Amino acid sequence: MIFANYNVTVCNIFIQTFHMARPSQQLDLALLEAGEEELRLKGVRGLSVRAVCARAGVSPRMLNYYFESKDNFVRTLLVRGYKNFSREVEESARGTDAPLDRLRRGVRVCLRHTIEGRLTLRNLICDAYADEPVVSEILQERNSHTRIMYGLMEDAWRRGDLRRDVSPAEIFMAVMPGVFLPTLRMDTPFPFNIHRIREIADQVEQKYPDSEDGLRQEVEHGMRMFDLLLRGFLSKRHDGARSFRPPRTGRRAGSLKRRLASAHSGQGKAGEKTAEHAQSEGPGHIVHHAGQRGENAE
Amino acid sequence: MIFANYNVTVCNIFIQTFHMARPSQQLDLALLEAGEEELRLKGVRGLSVRAVCARAGVSPRMLNYYFESKDNFVRTLLVRGYKNFSREVEESARGTDAPLDRLRRGVRVCLRHTIEGRLTLRNLICDAYADEPVVSEILQERNSHTRIMYGLMEDAWRRGDLRRDVSPAEIFMAVMPGVFLPTLRMDTPFPFNIHRIREIADQVEQKYPDSEDGLRQEVEHGMRMFDLLLRGFLSKRHDGARSFRPPRTGRRAGSLKRRLASAHSGQGKAGEKTAEHAQSEGPGHIVHHAGQRGENAE
Repeated sequence: MIFANYNVTVCNIFIQTFHMARPSQQLDLALLEAGEEELRLKGVRGLSVRAVCARAGVSPRMLNYYFESKDNFVRTLLVRGYKNFSREVEESARGTDAPLDRLRRGVRVCLRHTIEGRLTLRNLICDAYADEPVVSEILQERNSHTRIMYGLMEDAWRRGDLRRDVSPAEIFMAVMPGVFLPTLRMDTPFPFNIHRIREIADQVEQKYPDSEDGLRQEVEHGMRMFDLLLRGFLSKRHDGARSFRPPRTGRRAGSLKRRLASAHSGQGKAGEKTAEHAQSEGPGHIVHHAGQRGENAE
Repeated sequence: MIFANYNVTVCNIFIQTFHMARPSQQLDLALLEAGEEELRLKGVRGLSVRAVCARAGVSPRMLNYYFESKDNFVRTLLVRGYKNFSREVEESARGTDAPLDRLRRGVRVCLRHTIEGRLTLRNLICDAYADEPVVSEILQERNSHTRIMYGLMEDAWRRGDLRRDVSPAEIFMAVMPGVFLPTLRMDTPFPFNIHRIREIADQVEQKYPDSEDGLRQEVEHGMRMFDLLLRGFLSKRHDGARSFRPPRTGRRAGSLKRRLASAHSGQGKAGEKTAEHAQSEGPGHIVHHAGQRGENAE
C-alpha cells in the first residue's frame, strides 16, 4: 500500500535512524501502526490524535512527545509509506530491456499498491482535492515514482515505440487515469459520475473477491486495461495490432509468467535469453506480444 | 459550460415559470449571473452570499427573498446549468446511426462544455470529493447524460462493435477518464500527481490559446484522444486498426465535417446518404474511419 503499508524492517530502520537511543521505540511503532489504520478509515482531515492514541493504547501526550504535532505525525506516516512504495517502483523499472517493458513492470507495482491501499488512497485523494496542507506538501515533494514512470514513457517515445504525433505527456495523461481510476474505484464526478450510478458501477465493483487470489486477478485486469488503452498509441513501426491479444481474464499468474518469458525470449522458451538480448529484439515487444496466447472471447 | 453557462432564453423560461407574476425578475437574473461567476472563482464551499450580492449590486436580503437559502440558491444555479448541458447531450446522441457514432457526438458536446466550464468544474469536483451536500445531492439526481452515453456504449457492445471479453462498463470507465481528466487539466493525485510536476504538465497545459479557435482545437484534440483510447477495445469484426488514423492536430473544423460526412457516406461524398443508410454500412465506422485522411506524423 502506497501510504498505508510498510514492512517491519523498513520501520525499524526508520526508528533506529531517528530515535537511536530511545528505549521505548515500541511506542512510536504502536502509534504509527494505529495512525495507518486511522488514515485508512478517516483520511488526514478526519484523523484525530485522540483516536490514534486510544487505538495504540497510549496517552495522547506521547504522540506529541514523539512526533511534536499532528502534522508532523501525519508527515512521518505518509513519508515512510511512500519511501517503501517508491523504492519498489524504482527496482521494478530497472533493467536494460525496452522502456515499455520496464514501464509495464512499474505499472504492475503501482497497481498492486493501489489495490492494497485503496481505502487509504481514496481518503488521501479527497484530502488532496480539499487542499489539506500536509498532503499537498508531500505531493509536491514526493514524486520520484511519477518521474521514473514518465521518464520510461518518454524514452519509449524517443526510441520510436510510440506514435510521434502525440506527445509522451499526452499519452501518459490519457492512459494512466484510465488504468488507475477504475482500480481505485473512483472516477471524476464530472462529466461522468459513474460510481454514483449503481448499474454501471456494480459490473465492476463486485467482481473480485477480497483475497490474495483476488488481488492477483485485479492486478492482471489492470495490466490488461493498460495494454488495451496503450494500443492506439503504439507506433506504426511496432504496431503489432493484428497479433495483439490482451491477456484472458481469470488466467493464472503462472501462465502469465510463462507468457511474459516467452515474449522475452521471442521463441516461446522461458529464461533462455538475457534482458539485453530481449532488448535487441526491439522495444515494446511485451506490450505487443503480451497476450499472444490469450484468446479474444468474441 | 456544464454548470456555469446558459443562454438567456433558457434563463428567462426558468424565471417565467417559477416567478411568473414577479415584477423584478431582473434581480433574480442578476443574482444567478453573479452566482455563476462566484462558482467559477470559488466553488460551492467558497461561495459567499455576501459576495454574490455585492457582485450583483443587490442587498443580501434579496437573495434570501428570492431563493430562501444559500443551499437553494446553489441548487438553482447547478440545476439550470445542468439542464442546458444534458439537453444538448441528449440531442447530440439522437439518431438512428451506429451507437459509436452517436457516442462520439455526445463526447464532443461533453468536451466543449468541459473546456468552457473548466474552472467551475474543477471547483465542483473538489466540492464533490469534499462531500459538499448540495453538490453530492445534484450528482445523485442529475445523471441523465451519463446514462445516455453509457447506454450508447452498451448498445455498441451488444451489437458486437466492441470486444466482448471486456464489459461495456469497464471500457467506459477506462476510456472516459483518459479523455476528460486531461481536458479538465486535472488528474488523480495518486498514484500519479502529474499536474504537480511542471515539466510534464507544461507540455499539455499551455498548448491552446484562450480563443474560439483554441476551443475548437481542444475539442478536436479530445476527440482524437477518445479515438485512440477506444482503439484497443474495438472488436475484431470492426477492428479497422490498419486503416485507422486519428485526426491531424490543428485541422480545421470544416475539413473535419467533410471527413465525418465522408465516413458517413462511405464514399467520400458528403451528405448523399441518410443516417439510416450509414447505419446499414456497419457500426462504429466513424470511429474507425474518422482519421482516414489524417496523417500519422511519424
